[in-house]
Amino acid sequence: ELLSDLIDHFQPKHLAGKRVLITAGPTSEAIDPVRVITNRSSGKTGYAIAQAAREAGAQVVLVSGPTSLPCPRHVLRIDTESAIDMHAIVMNEATQADIFISVAAVADWHVINSSQQKLKKTEQGQGLPELQFAPNPDILAEVARLSDGPWCVGFAAETENLHEHAEAKRKRKGIPLLVGNLAQHAMNADTTQFVLFDDKGHQALPAQPKLSAARELILAIAQRHSSIQAKSQGTHRK
Amino acid sequence: ELLSDLIDHFQPKHLAGKRVLITAGPTSEAIDPVRVITNRSSGKTGYAIAQAAREAGAQVVLVSGPTSLPCPRHVLRIDTESAIDMHAIVMNEATQADIFISVAAVADWHVINSSQQKLKKTEQGQGLPELQFAPNPDILAEVARLSDGPWCVGFAAETENLHEHAEAKRKRKGIPLLVGNLAQHAMNADTTQFVLFDDKGHQALPAQPKLSAARELILAIAQRHSSIQAKSQGTHRK
Repeated sequence: ELLSDLIDHFQPKHLAGKRVLITAGPTSEAIDPVRVITNRSSGKTGYAIAQAAREAGAQVVLVSGPTSLPCPRHVLRIDTESAIDMHAIVMNEATQADIFISVAAVADWHVINSSQQKLKKTEQGQGLPELQFAPNPDILAEVARLSDGPWCVGFAAETENLHEHAEAKRKRKGIPLLVGNLAQHAMNADTTQFVLFDDKGHQALPAQPKLSAARELILAIAQRHSSIQAKSQGTHRK
Repeated sequence: ELLSDLIDHFQPKHLAGKRVLITAGPTSEAIDPVRVITNRSSGKTGYAIAQAAREAGAQVVLVSGPTSLPCPRHVLRIDTESAIDMHAIVMNEATQADIFISVAAVADWHVINSSQQKLKKTEQGQGLPELQFAPNPDILAEVARLSDGPWCVGFAAETENLHEHAEAKRKRKGIPLLVGNLAQHAMNADTTQFVLFDDKGHQALPAQPKLSAARELILAIAQRHSSIQAKSQGTHRK
């Protein structure tokens, strides 16, 4: 812990005084009390970004789906399960944040006919479930639409056509920065490669361990966020 | 590690010379490369039983679904994902085992129209998935039917009517011993309460930490298994 505090101490404080809200991990959508639909997300990328933001001097709130990871030191973690839970927590925290980084692999749908009791194999029809789905709230797009909301960063984990999907997602969500990665390389791995998409184009960071990738990303976010702030202060002075 | 080896050394060797096959954790059934259907199972109960069996002198093969747990020392772990994977591995190992303890929360169904590419929210119909299911193999029942198979122990995690469901499951699977527990108490917890169901009735063990519950269970299994062996040797002598 001393070592971790020392390393923390010597990181550049690009985000001193900023409040950063981060989501991480998968969400877990109940089918019944035992069965769930979830995503192959270990939470490692989001936790590394939370740690890097904290090292950079930010006050960090980490809204986490179910993971087995320890909470990074000096980070406030709020545990959630479903996308609807996560949405409620994030909307409550968003207006107090300067920056929102949406890393969680949020389920797109939840099961509307989920059961309070464990489904028995023999109970319904051929014993096979007939799940009905409804869309989950789009947490990132809602935060991006807030008039007094934070500066937003999204993530796109894609299995193919990363560039096309990522840039389309950035525009659809209405956010200034989207980070793409190839899901099959990053999932449950300790290394990752980020590609940053913004209105100037895209920039690929090197493949590297998740914590060092997270530190590079935090620097890129801090630079963009401070230049936006400088511009908006300029506007106010007119 | 030294301490763990010492504790191991002083446990009674009820299963010396026996080969024990154990399944643990959830299975993970793919919807697409990112999304899965799984069970709320941490694997802690199965891993504790693997450790207890090892301490009791057995040679232990642990067939594990995805968990974040470290493999107990001196246990051979084989990692699997889907129920179909787990079935193939278990059927391959079963005839070499003296005892099979089926602890894994195996999914009852898999998705037959799973996708090789990540499903996009907007691609199909209303953007909602229409999942079609097929039943998974019943690993425990198949092992129990093997003519040269191991002595079988099943698990039933139920959310209500434990006694009724557990005894029905024991008969349906055709196994001598079934261990029931209440899923809502045991899931992801560090303590558990086992209720043992056999052809003499049922016996509730005290609620206790998973490793000590596992040690009591291994003793109960060893006693039943050795009395069966004594009987069958008696028969041979006639």
